[in-house]
Amino acid sequence: MFEVRLVQGSVLKKVVEAIRELVTDANFDCSSTGLSLQAMDSSHVALVALLLRSDGFEHFRCDRNVSMGMNLANVSKILRTAGNDDIITLKADDDGDVLTFMFESPRLLYLEKGPILAEILQSSDFSVTYICFDLDQDRISDIEMKLMDIKSEHLGIPDAEYEAVVKMPSQEFLRICKDLSNIGDTVVISVTKEGVKFSTRGDIGNANIVCRQNTTVDKPEDSTTIQMKEPVSLTFALRYMNSFTKATSLSSSVTISMSSDLPIVVEYKIADMGYLRFYLAPKIEDDEDQA
Amino acid sequence: MFEVRLVQGSVLKKVVEAIRELVTDANFDCSSTGLSLQAMDSSHVALVALLLRSDGFEHFRCDRNVSMGMNLANVSKILRTAGNDDIITLKADDDGDVLTFMFESPRLLYLEKGPILAEILQSSDFSVTYICFDLDQDRISDIEMKLMDIKSEHLGIPDAEYEAVVKMPSQEFLRICKDLSNIGDTVVISVTKEGVKFSTRGDIGNANIVCRQNTTVDKPEDSTTIQMKEPVSLTFALRYMNSFTKATSLSSSVTISMSSDLPIVVEYKIADMGYLRFYLAPKIEDDEDQA
Amino acid sequence: MFEVRLVQGSVLKKVVEAIRELVTDANFDCSSTGLSLQAMDSSHVALVALLLRSDGFEHFRCDRNVSMGMNLANVSKILRTAGNDDIITLKADDDGDVLTFMFESPRLLYLEKGPILAEILQSSDFSVTYICFDLDQDRISDIEMKLMDIKSEHLGIPDAEYEAVVKMPSQEFLRICKDLSNIGDTVVISVTKEGVKFSTRGDIGNANIVCRQNTTVDKPEDSTTIQMKEPVSLTFALRYMNSFTKATSLSSSVTISMSSDLPIVVEYKIADMGYLRFYLAPKIEDDEDQA
Repeated sequence: MFEVRLVQGSVLKKVVEAIRELVTDANFDCSSTGLSLQAMDSSHVALVALLLRSDGFEHFRCDRNVSMGMNLANVSKILRTAGNDDIITLKADDDGDVLTFMFESPRLLYLEKGPILAEILQSSDFSVTYICFDLDQDRISDIEMKLMDIKSEHLGIPDAEYEAVVKMPSQEFLRICKDLSNIGDTVVISVTKEGVKFSTRGDIGNANIVCRQNTTVDKPEDSTTIQMKEPVSLTFALRYMNSFTKATSLSSSVTISMSSDLPIVVEYKIADMGYLRFYLAPKIEDDEDQA
Repeated sequence: MFEVRLVQGSVLKKVVEAIRELVTDANFDCSSTGLSLQAMDSSHVALVALLLRSDGFEHFRCDRNVSMGMNLANVSKILRTAGNDDIITLKADDDGDVLTFMFESPRLLYLEKGPILAEILQSSDFSVTYICFDLDQDRISDIEMKLMDIKSEHLGIPDAEYEAVVKMPSQEFLRICKDLSNIGDTVVISVTKEGVKFSTRGDIGNANIVCRQNTTVDKPEDSTTIQMKEPVSLTFALRYMNSFTKATSLSSSVTISMSSDLPIVVEYKIADMGYLRFYLAPKIEDDEDQA
Repeated sequence: MFEVRLVQGSVLKKVVEAIRELVTDANFDCSSTGLSLQAMDSSHVALVALLLRSDGFEHFRCDRNVSMGMNLANVSKILRTAGNDDIITLKADDDGDVLTFMFESPRLLYLEKGPILAEILQSSDFSVTYICFDLDQDRISDIEMKLMDIKSEHLGIPDAEYEAVVKMPSQEFLRICKDLSNIGDTVVISVTKEGVKFSTRGDIGNANIVCRQNTTVDKPEDSTTIQMKEPVSLTFALRYMNSFTKATSLSSSVTISMSSDLPIVVEYKIADMGYLRFYLAPKIEDDEDQA
């Protein structure tokens, strides 16, 4: 028996939208500790790793480990029928080849008691929220989806110490990747004590964007911080970076970890639940032309 | 002589946008009681019926009954040149083959005296509104459109007692039809005392959305009410349902009337003026596969 | 040495977006008096003339006259990487074939001291603004673009007295051109003492839009004023008029100058800096059918 209930159903919607461009089919691995996913993109260049810890769910029951293979385009279609404020429940039998999505819309209660509810949601006291919602529920959807058998190899990703770790507003990172794509195909990310530089070159010309360390802002999520052991400069395909930024809505900040001999890690934290991480190997630059 | 003046010109814009996907050419029938239209969609499966009563117009003059044939794509092009706040006047000679649209923009008065105007409009005392606008009018458009000769048969639609009548928020109905289209092609609408269930099945899986009766809301237009003599369950093509929901902006609620031996009626009321109704015959399900 | 700095960088973005549909490649001519551009559209029917006076820049240095050839699609790509609130600096060596764009984002200062800044910007005291921004700068982009050699003939445009000059809200003009394009291909603009009439005819029918003189409005930019020596009526291709209205965001009003023997001038003023003007020869109507 597998049954989990997520009050902030929008998290699941955002996760699937964030990865479905990179990954076609994937196994969602469920155990008592939570829900996780690991998948390579179709060209086997980038790796996606998701963790949603069980304690982030209002209710989480997973009697035995199970791996549920899904086509992400189909999951996306189904989740698009859920509202952003919907509570999402996922259910499956142990031997089942069917996953049931249940969406509950707390629409009317919201209209009447919005401010109180907002406060309750903030307090994260989900069991109270649950009772409130359930009394006034007036729209419930349930959708059954057939599961797939997907062969997949689980890669062990060793914990590593990175030479440079940059934390910056996720919107800023999104805009830089998008802006540079107007000029070139690859980005050189260079970290020094002063800041992080994103560079590209193309037929039109060359572009450099420098973000300085900045911690004197009112809100921590607006800050740009750099932890650095030694300067690093690596080159990546902008196409993948742009795919990674589909996760921007999951978190107001993004953490970029780099070492000269390791894939870059672009991480979006999922509040109180876990993370969505993207790994990408740097391009090796034989000559100038490749940049 | 035919001349009618509609202060809330946006109603006409919305009506034409609501039906132009279903209907290519249609006759607008004018008599002293009002403006009406009846038309089949091009595949002769759905029927559209419109009524705009004469007393909903600020001014309504129709000396003798006249049937004006129009291409709805052209009417839509013309009405798109009218602003949402424009007053619309329609004019035609008795023997004329030309209809004149006149649009008056109360733009500047709005900017200066918005709050007062809003109050006047609410009170529906149109003759006062008219005088105000006319003094400050600074933009007038008139467009002459050639009328067409369209052969059409007027079907008598008998008044019927329906086994089940569901009134629900029109936005909710719109979303359900759109959501289910992500999964399947047809919808089974089932009404019981507890609520109304919308179901579909497709390659991905099966989906059910249940809306419970709900009358304990602050605003009557947010309520879902069910009047039922006996349970009904009928199947319809989602393609048509989605077309009908183009009328959503006309009314905050929609009324769905069903009997097992009659076409479904999906009705959007037009405040103080009449209605826009869509009729669609149920699909007969010979076997499971058709659903 | 050429180096200019524009605090309201959005002006440059808007100018390029306004003309890039009409003009593919063009020379930006720089002298101590300012930055200017003159270019024919690719079909040699319309003429674009831009002036940005040096005193509208925070900093303006141009040691000797220089003509910088640019592909406007490339310039547009580069400027799209600048935010709307960015300060833009342009730099080139005297003998250089490279132009450097520098964008500074005053993002965080904005968030903290928005209201104060807004006031400073309003006062146009740019040197103060500059110091403020520079202290908190945390994102700087620089982009190098190769310049092109473009052969161009500089036309002398003689100052003329126009028979009729209409000043009207630029949004109103935009909407009229767009609306009439739904009906026909050309517009007849007729100016009389009472107002300005825009007419078209097409397969659907005929349309006339009349804007009356109106100076009794609260805001001068909402007024429609007509200065007229004698009535004028000229015909133009709507396609070009619609291109001209891409400049709408540059100014809240547009000035249209017409004489029966001269090209029409459609002018958008650029506050404190200059103007963007479009010239278009009238169509000669041999017969009714051409209209």
